[in-house]
Amino acid sequence: MRMVDIIANKRDGKELTKEEIEFFINGYTKGEIPDYQASALLMAIFFNDMTAQESANLTMAMVNSGDQIDLSAIEGVKVDKHSTGGVGDTTTLVLAPLVAALDIPVAKMSGRGLGHTGGTIDKLEALDGFHVELSQEDFVNLVNKDKLAVIGQSGNLTPADKLIYALRDVTATVNSIPLIASSIMSKKIAAGADAIVLDVKVGDGAFMKTEEDAVQLAKAMVEIGNNVGRRTMAIISSMEEPLGYAIGNANEVREAIDTLKGEGPEDLKELSLTLASQMAVASGKVQTTEEARELLEKVIADGSALEKFKAFVNNQGGNGSLVDQPEKLPTAKYNIDVLATASGYVDSIDAEQVGVAASILGAGRQTKEDEIDLAVGIILHKKVGDAVKEGDVLATLEANTEAVEDVVKKVQNSYHYGQDQKQTKLIKRIITA
Amino acid sequence: MRMVDIIANKRDGKELTKEEIEFFINGYTKGEIPDYQASALLMAIFFNDMTAQESANLTMAMVNSGDQIDLSAIEGVKVDKHSTGGVGDTTTLVLAPLVAALDIPVAKMSGRGLGHTGGTIDKLEALDGFHVELSQEDFVNLVNKDKLAVIGQSGNLTPADKLIYALRDVTATVNSIPLIASSIMSKKIAAGADAIVLDVKVGDGAFMKTEEDAVQLAKAMVEIGNNVGRRTMAIISSMEEPLGYAIGNANEVREAIDTLKGEGPEDLKELSLTLASQMAVASGKVQTTEEARELLEKVIADGSALEKFKAFVNNQGGNGSLVDQPEKLPTAKYNIDVLATASGYVDSIDAEQVGVAASILGAGRQTKEDEIDLAVGIILHKKVGDAVKEGDVLATLEANTEAVEDVVKKVQNSYHYGQDQKQTKLIKRIITA
Repeated sequence: MRMVDIIANKRDGKELTKEEIEFFINGYTKGEIPDYQASALLMAIFFNDMTAQESANLTMAMVNSGDQIDLSAIEGVKVDKHSTGGVGDTTTLVLAPLVAALDIPVAKMSGRGLGHTGGTIDKLEALDGFHVELSQEDFVNLVNKDKLAVIGQSGNLTPADKLIYALRDVTATVNSIPLIASSIMSKKIAAGADAIVLDVKVGDGAFMKTEEDAVQLAKAMVEIGNNVGRRTMAIISSMEEPLGYAIGNANEVREAIDTLKGEGPEDLKELSLTLASQMAVASGKVQTTEEARELLEKVIADGSALEKFKAFVNNQGGNGSLVDQPEKLPTAKYNIDVLATASGYVDSIDAEQVGVAASILGAGRQTKEDEIDLAVGIILHKKVGDAVKEGDVLATLEANTEAVEDVVKKVQNSYHYGQDQKQTKLIKRIITA
Repeated sequence: MRMVDIIANKRDGKELTKEEIEFFINGYTKGEIPDYQASALLMAIFFNDMTAQESANLTMAMVNSGDQIDLSAIEGVKVDKHSTGGVGDTTTLVLAPLVAALDIPVAKMSGRGLGHTGGTIDKLEALDGFHVELSQEDFVNLVNKDKLAVIGQSGNLTPADKLIYALRDVTATVNSIPLIASSIMSKKIAAGADAIVLDVKVGDGAFMKTEEDAVQLAKAMVEIGNNVGRRTMAIISSMEEPLGYAIGNANEVREAIDTLKGEGPEDLKELSLTLASQMAVASGKVQTTEEARELLEKVIADGSALEKFKAFVNNQGGNGSLVDQPEKLPTAKYNIDVLATASGYVDSIDAEQVGVAASILGAGRQTKEDEIDLAVGIILHKKVGDAVKEGDVLATLEANTEAVEDVVKKVQNSYHYGQDQKQTKLIKRIITA
């Protein structure tokens, strides 16, 4: 087999065989196939797409290129969730305890990564003492006991994906549905997921700009998952504004706690319940999302979801009492109001820009070495559909400096107004097969 | 300017600017742009093609990437010819003296290269003592005096083309009209041609398999040439059989001498006269190909074309008397007849296979280090349209070994027969703009 023939086959619109895809992935991972052949193939895939079978084979070849997490010692169907990336997206902190409260195992591997705010682990570290340095054995035991634990990334997972991802970035081959889909799915599968629920964001602030593109990506991932024996579902959710009111770390933890009490922002609650319902169905615990929803509302109302969160925090060295006193979580020195510069109904809030604003305050990480300030962030007061008068408080910056003029401007510029009250729809589609 | 944006623009079907193309070619030649970005761009060009303006800019950027031969000291319009590659194609040896005999300067740079038979220089070396190690000054003086000289390749011509050509070969991006066209044209222009005549071969044995593809390539090259101020014309010629009867080196020289005397094979004569007529028009020496043809027939009939060839051979150290005694050119030890294994009319002769057969006898070079045996080769006796009976002599191998069973079989297998006599058409199209 020769790589040049594999490139030519894809170039000519032929379906690559499993053997051809494995030849590419194995050879490229080992460094035997050079970058210039890989990038030519990626561009040919960009133009000629991949069939469902090719995408499934590519995904599994990438899974097999490295280590895989073995969660077989955990009882039950392990369900994982993936979001294509939102700003102020605190859903993981809400739905993990929600789902665990239904006795469905949530064995999560999480990273720090780069972004406008910290990752799930960074946020949890706001709960003084919380850590993810667990042995594999402790991790398994905790999930079996309390159905929920988070462990830091370890092992050499999907090295092929890492190599290909870096290459796509510099060869203008990022925006290819089968390449995006197989990249996401391979990581989830290598991390041990039996079933996967996907949250595909759509909108100006999201990677997928149109609903059509988002649906295409969601379908591709659901198809891959089901083709390789992992029950997979997806929702398409709107990103015409940040999710919830809080953008940051400690403030997002507070918002998650509120939501677990049934008091959080409506959109965060709605998205969390929708995703958690799907996870419950994907796990096989219940048959319908309606049934799941009823159970989930119950574990919120009776406090057991919040108790689950507290137990989880305590299990991993965190200060669980903070869950009952979220006001004691880290707070910033200054609260600086951002005032509206125009009047009208909020039509959209540029989530990307608000994220950058939070990042400038210190909530995020641009390079791996950056330290995150868990106390800082942004609290929105006005969301899409709200009426605003010039001078109203749009948002409050939680800052550790008073030199925030740029950030104020950025948040102001993120707001777009219209004459009519806009009706928003958070959950746009649900894709199950 | 960033290479990744240039790739994205081509990927999205935008026309690249002159600056973008120059950025790519200059950066790639200097090694500042990596192979993996170049190959992604090449694949995007494969899918999205290039406009005439882009192709012209790419060609000139490649010309400017290295040295250019300065032929300004030679009087008149310097016309060069390029063939996309044929078997038994002795036209250069015929038309160079033909055109020079019309007082049109032919200042040819030629290489050895790899192939089924030797290159132009190898063939000429059959004329004992002939060499191409001329100083630039001697080269110019010879052309000014006798209108014809051949010099070996020197200087660092079109390094960008060399790099891109090597990369295309391993990334399945060879078959792209704008990339093929710009590669050919850049080499001719860097070698100093003021006007260019192209012979695009079409058929199973050629690089272009269909007339449609050949026309597309010819048009692309003609368009590039005219866009960058080099008068350019092309013919589309058939490759359903080898050209002429001889395939080898010394035997092709003999056939060229015959043709210059007006005694050569009809197809070689016809192709040489057609190309030479176009070169005469391209040089501005005459207005019409009819006029050119008349003059060319005359220099054959009055012996001045042959005299021109003899003077040229003598000028470059060769034994010009061999032109009058071509039987004294190198000959092989054995003449081995190849007999027909079937009866019928010859329908086609696989030129590629006949070329490989000649190469096995020693007429060609697979690696740069190989030595060519100038004496060996193949003489065909039956061509397309000829009636053949089983046992007839199809061809004669001129060999320096008797162990030629494989070669005999290969030549036999190259012949394909039909029930009806096929009408062939050598010159399929002429493309002038």
